[in-house]
Amino acid sequence: MSGTQTWTVGVTGATGYAGGEVCRLLAGHPSLRLAGVHANSSAGRRLGELQPHLLPYADLEVQPSAAEDLAGYDVVVLALPHGESAAIAAQLPDDTLVIDCGADHRLNDPAAWARWYGSEHAGTWPYGLPELPGQRERLTGARRIAVPGCYPTSVTLAMAPALAAGLVEPEVVAVAASGTSGAGKSAKPHLLGSEVMGSVSTYGVGGVHRHTPEMVQNLSQAAGEPVGVSFTPMLVPMSRGILATCSARLRPGVDAAAARAAYEKAYADEPFVHLLPEGQWPTTAQVLGANTVAVQVAVDPDAGRLVVVVTEDNLTKGTAGAAIQCANLALGLPETTGLPLVGVAP
Amino acid sequence: MSGTQTWTVGVTGATGYAGGEVCRLLAGHPSLRLAGVHANSSAGRRLGELQPHLLPYADLEVQPSAAEDLAGYDVVVLALPHGESAAIAAQLPDDTLVIDCGADHRLNDPAAWARWYGSEHAGTWPYGLPELPGQRERLTGARRIAVPGCYPTSVTLAMAPALAAGLVEPEVVAVAASGTSGAGKSAKPHLLGSEVMGSVSTYGVGGVHRHTPEMVQNLSQAAGEPVGVSFTPMLVPMSRGILATCSARLRPGVDAAAARAAYEKAYADEPFVHLLPEGQWPTTAQVLGANTVAVQVAVDPDAGRLVVVVTEDNLTKGTAGAAIQCANLALGLPETTGLPLVGVAP
Amino acid sequence: MSGTQTWTVGVTGATGYAGGEVCRLLAGHPSLRLAGVHANSSAGRRLGELQPHLLPYADLEVQPSAAEDLAGYDVVVLALPHGESAAIAAQLPDDTLVIDCGADHRLNDPAAWARWYGSEHAGTWPYGLPELPGQRERLTGARRIAVPGCYPTSVTLAMAPALAAGLVEPEVVAVAASGTSGAGKSAKPHLLGSEVMGSVSTYGVGGVHRHTPEMVQNLSQAAGEPVGVSFTPMLVPMSRGILATCSARLRPGVDAAAARAAYEKAYADEPFVHLLPEGQWPTTAQVLGANTVAVQVAVDPDAGRLVVVVTEDNLTKGTAGAAIQCANLALGLPETTGLPLVGVAP
Amino acid sequence: MSGTQTWTVGVTGATGYAGGEVCRLLAGHPSLRLAGVHANSSAGRRLGELQPHLLPYADLEVQPSAAEDLAGYDVVVLALPHGESAAIAAQLPDDTLVIDCGADHRLNDPAAWARWYGSEHAGTWPYGLPELPGQRERLTGARRIAVPGCYPTSVTLAMAPALAAGLVEPEVVAVAASGTSGAGKSAKPHLLGSEVMGSVSTYGVGGVHRHTPEMVQNLSQAAGEPVGVSFTPMLVPMSRGILATCSARLRPGVDAAAARAAYEKAYADEPFVHLLPEGQWPTTAQVLGANTVAVQVAVDPDAGRLVVVVTEDNLTKGTAGAAIQCANLALGLPETTGLPLVGVAP
Repeated sequence: MSGTQTWTVGVTGATGYAGGEVCRLLAGHPSLRLAGVHANSSAGRRLGELQPHLLPYADLEVQPSAAEDLAGYDVVVLALPHGESAAIAAQLPDDTLVIDCGADHRLNDPAAWARWYGSEHAGTWPYGLPELPGQRERLTGARRIAVPGCYPTSVTLAMAPALAAGLVEPEVVAVAASGTSGAGKSAKPHLLGSEVMGSVSTYGVGGVHRHTPEMVQNLSQAAGEPVGVSFTPMLVPMSRGILATCSARLRPGVDAAAARAAYEKAYADEPFVHLLPEGQWPTTAQVLGANTVAVQVAVDPDAGRLVVVVTEDNLTKGTAGAAIQCANLALGLPETTGLPLVGVAP
Repeated sequence: MSGTQTWTVGVTGATGYAGGEVCRLLAGHPSLRLAGVHANSSAGRRLGELQPHLLPYADLEVQPSAAEDLAGYDVVVLALPHGESAAIAAQLPDDTLVIDCGADHRLNDPAAWARWYGSEHAGTWPYGLPELPGQRERLTGARRIAVPGCYPTSVTLAMAPALAAGLVEPEVVAVAASGTSGAGKSAKPHLLGSEVMGSVSTYGVGGVHRHTPEMVQNLSQAAGEPVGVSFTPMLVPMSRGILATCSARLRPGVDAAAARAAYEKAYADEPFVHLLPEGQWPTTAQVLGANTVAVQVAVDPDAGRLVVVVTEDNLTKGTAGAAIQCANLALGLPETTGLPLVGVAP
Repeated sequence: MSGTQTWTVGVTGATGYAGGEVCRLLAGHPSLRLAGVHANSSAGRRLGELQPHLLPYADLEVQPSAAEDLAGYDVVVLALPHGESAAIAAQLPDDTLVIDCGADHRLNDPAAWARWYGSEHAGTWPYGLPELPGQRERLTGARRIAVPGCYPTSVTLAMAPALAAGLVEPEVVAVAASGTSGAGKSAKPHLLGSEVMGSVSTYGVGGVHRHTPEMVQNLSQAAGEPVGVSFTPMLVPMSRGILATCSARLRPGVDAAAARAAYEKAYADEPFVHLLPEGQWPTTAQVLGANTVAVQVAVDPDAGRLVVVVTEDNLTKGTAGAAIQCANLALGLPETTGLPLVGVAP
Repeated sequence: MSGTQTWTVGVTGATGYAGGEVCRLLAGHPSLRLAGVHANSSAGRRLGELQPHLLPYADLEVQPSAAEDLAGYDVVVLALPHGESAAIAAQLPDDTLVIDCGADHRLNDPAAWARWYGSEHAGTWPYGLPELPGQRERLTGARRIAVPGCYPTSVTLAMAPALAAGLVEPEVVAVAASGTSGAGKSAKPHLLGSEVMGSVSTYGVGGVHRHTPEMVQNLSQAAGEPVGVSFTPMLVPMSRGILATCSARLRPGVDAAAARAAYEKAYADEPFVHLLPEGQWPTTAQVLGANTVAVQVAVDPDAGRLVVVVTEDNLTKGTAGAAIQCANLALGLPETTGLPLVGVAP
């Protein structure tokens, strides 16, 4: 264990859902210490007014979040809207560990960035999904890390093993149900409780969700060939959690045993990814608030498809937990340090 | 309108969710009168104990549900578990209008029935989905009607127009989120409120849900060729509603305009199926408690797929509302008589 | 029944929750016809964009809501924020039936109005709670009606019979759980789905909720002496519904039989208020979307208190259903015309 | 800190909600090690089948729960239905730390036990609410501890300071909203998700809930005189959490400042009980999964009452967290060891 060494952490966007979740996890981390919270729009207010659950930090005063306000921390976590972190990150010292929960540094292809975000590409950082082959090593000791998007984490973990093993054709259909916290804390009418309770809706249908190119990138790397992804997100009446149902056409001769073997092999040694026993299907409740991913696979011989279901908490393993997991790797701490493994169920 | 004529209705399975919804709709119907409620397990009890919302019928005594108990009604609605309605129906007079909300008489193919239900096929009745081409005529004046399953209604309405118009290849991927009432009123641990609130789960993954052959049957008829269906249901934290996300590979040259035109043509004159204006996506809240279906289509040129999203209330248009709609047709009443068109939102 | 006569209705605030519910109920009313929808902030837009569930009215264009825009209707329903209806109402013709869903004309005491709303009192209209003694007669043929607040409806129906019968001391403690639609459609951060799902909260604690003086007024009239009311509202994770738990100290010698008898007498002939059989307790689900109120009473001999529990749908009997019920009375229609009696459950 | 010493823990009723929560908390505790799980009805099954979220313990086999099966642990936690723990506890060694989450050993008065539970009283153990005056000392080093009921914890923490300080008259009205997990994991129809989602209900109205005598006992001790409690529980659509709204008539001359001062004094040094800043009201979300209690007070001068609102997680501080907190005290560990302070919000 880390013994007595601790690192200070500053969190920007600390008043939002992702930033708040980083703070929550830091409260239980033995080696990382929340030393400052930042958010331009709320600078000067008590954190407790804006994040009532962060009771141990209630009296922290929110600071501005310009680059100069972030100097002096060992670790800076950027939980900002897409497009806002690159400029800040560029001004932070090279030896500061900077973890970006936004999209700015995830995509490899500047053209893809320009197409989907309409601005200049800020460059690519090591991608914070240690469960991808070879990725854990790239993150160890890194000082710049791009945390994956919440949907790409689930869809990538669902389909990468099958694509890497050549079990399926490179066309993935992914339909993912998400809790509303994935849409952020801005007060928009369609996100009101009265609208979302008792109701399911879709959005970003037809391949227009910005997480799609990230899925294409990850899955194409896994497959070693271009992979098409049809992605449809839906909002379901809960605050947290993603359940992704992903499928692809089976290649000839692939049966259930081969499929299961590929996933067992991929995740046998992963501390956070659990292939469930046969017959048991993932729920989001079982991973609520935990850095855990639950996976199950099925082969549908009539339809000729592999179907993989994955659950995660979009704010924990989908964002803030991944940030801490990556920080642990970057700082040489045991990867699971300070991260809940058990969901808050029921 | 129907003037002064009224028909008496007996409902079996009146203590369950589907049967209760039939009773709720009858309370607002000007020409159908609930004359008796039946359910073997609760015979002798007040309906109000078991269905507290049916306040106008609270003092009705639940009767047994053998065939002889159902004699004398003009209309009998069977809302029984799959496999239980055939034997009862066979004993009812030919001129009684019998509407079966169960699966017993939906499938055309005895072999399919045997494979999925493991018993002898009871025969096929006119299929209660008036929105399919030619089907409205078959239901007019009918005395035996098989109400579709709730999932097949949504998936069929989603994909039949595209398949009929030859816009897509005959392989459909359908992922449908359902409220928990679709799982019925039996007290099972995984359906407890503590388990389902704040959680999404899947079940019947890999093509093993019994509604799959019904989808295959409907969509193959629409396409004029065999259609494969990969169907995955999920349970989401709400009592009612289905949102189905369905997709298939586009045939060459099909664009968004062609797709939209096919759906406009299919549903322009339908009283219950609404193709939403471009840019608006269906929610289950907008159809809650109504016999209404909301539809929207999108073309994803990157993935090369047509994506169609449909919402319905599984208990209303998905079951009991369809039963009333079919009864209206069978009895020569205007099709929309007594059926709510506006969902209870928010 | 009303035969062939119909009345035209204009609804202001039609883009909000209360106004939308008025429109929903009008869709099922045989004698009232929605002829125009008004809302200043959204004038010029299609109603379907703002109220997706009102599919039969989706193509209505929202009109402005100044008094001159409301001329020519037989009935005008004002579903506006408190304080906005008085000025408009003053300019409408005397023979137009004007039904105000806001607070402006509910309070008798100008001083109470000034204290709680900080503006000049606009005057008092007949109070739209026909279940109060003598009130039905005052509403018959009226042309100005003030619809009660949603909380006062529940608390008044809960305690008026006991106070009128002298069963309890004139100090009421009321704690009422409400769905979030009661807080309206304005996008405020604490009303986001992410905040309200899985969470209960209070607000307006300590007697500061503006519905308190209306409760005091109603209950004091019932008791024939001043009644104190300690009222605490809470928000619970559902869109619709109020459950009010109300209690007061029993006067000497009052037992359970006397309490029950008082409520049986008060509500025996009421079409919308149901005293449940002993042993059954109200739920909000059983009245969802219906104009129905469920009531149950208990005597706690240890604590020496009468406890009364009432449920209603805050948007239906709590607002829009009451408006229609009052319109029926005012226009000489049967009181229950067009109003659902059965809740949408489960 | 506790250094290297660890204690083994056996949990009975580990397949239920309270037992599962004990296991969840043990997964994050540095000095207590879950060494065995017990439950008669499920003996022989994998824990993972029954508690899917307890992934680190998924392969533990459930053991029977007779006293002999529980021998050898340093700590035994009994999470059994009321009335089942006394017989087992009586057979466990005196030096085993036994923590009973059931009611068997909470009441001081054998007559009260007999009246409310209808069986012979098993005796009284030190009461596991360290926040009561003098109670922390009684728990330090104890080997038998009775964990309070979830409702009594909230109502006691709400009203004890005011009663102890003589601010209010000794008649408390408490209305508490609870998530459904408080009703346990038995599959009962009224606890189905379809029934509880979108609905609020009451139960145990009129002073018949078995937690009432425990509240009376605690509050009478605090007041130094007999206190009457009118308690009404309600079920709200969420899995976890209690919000209790409690009030009592103010004694003459007591104002808001005096009330606030009493609560500040009572809870200033408590690690788990937070009096919120003025203007902020408790939510259950802010304490979800944490051992934390949020408190706020208000004075209503019109009604002449003190109103106190308290939130807690019924499974954490309301049951399992209290068990761990007490174990920490009993074993000489820092009281907060291994207990989450921050709720999982949003």
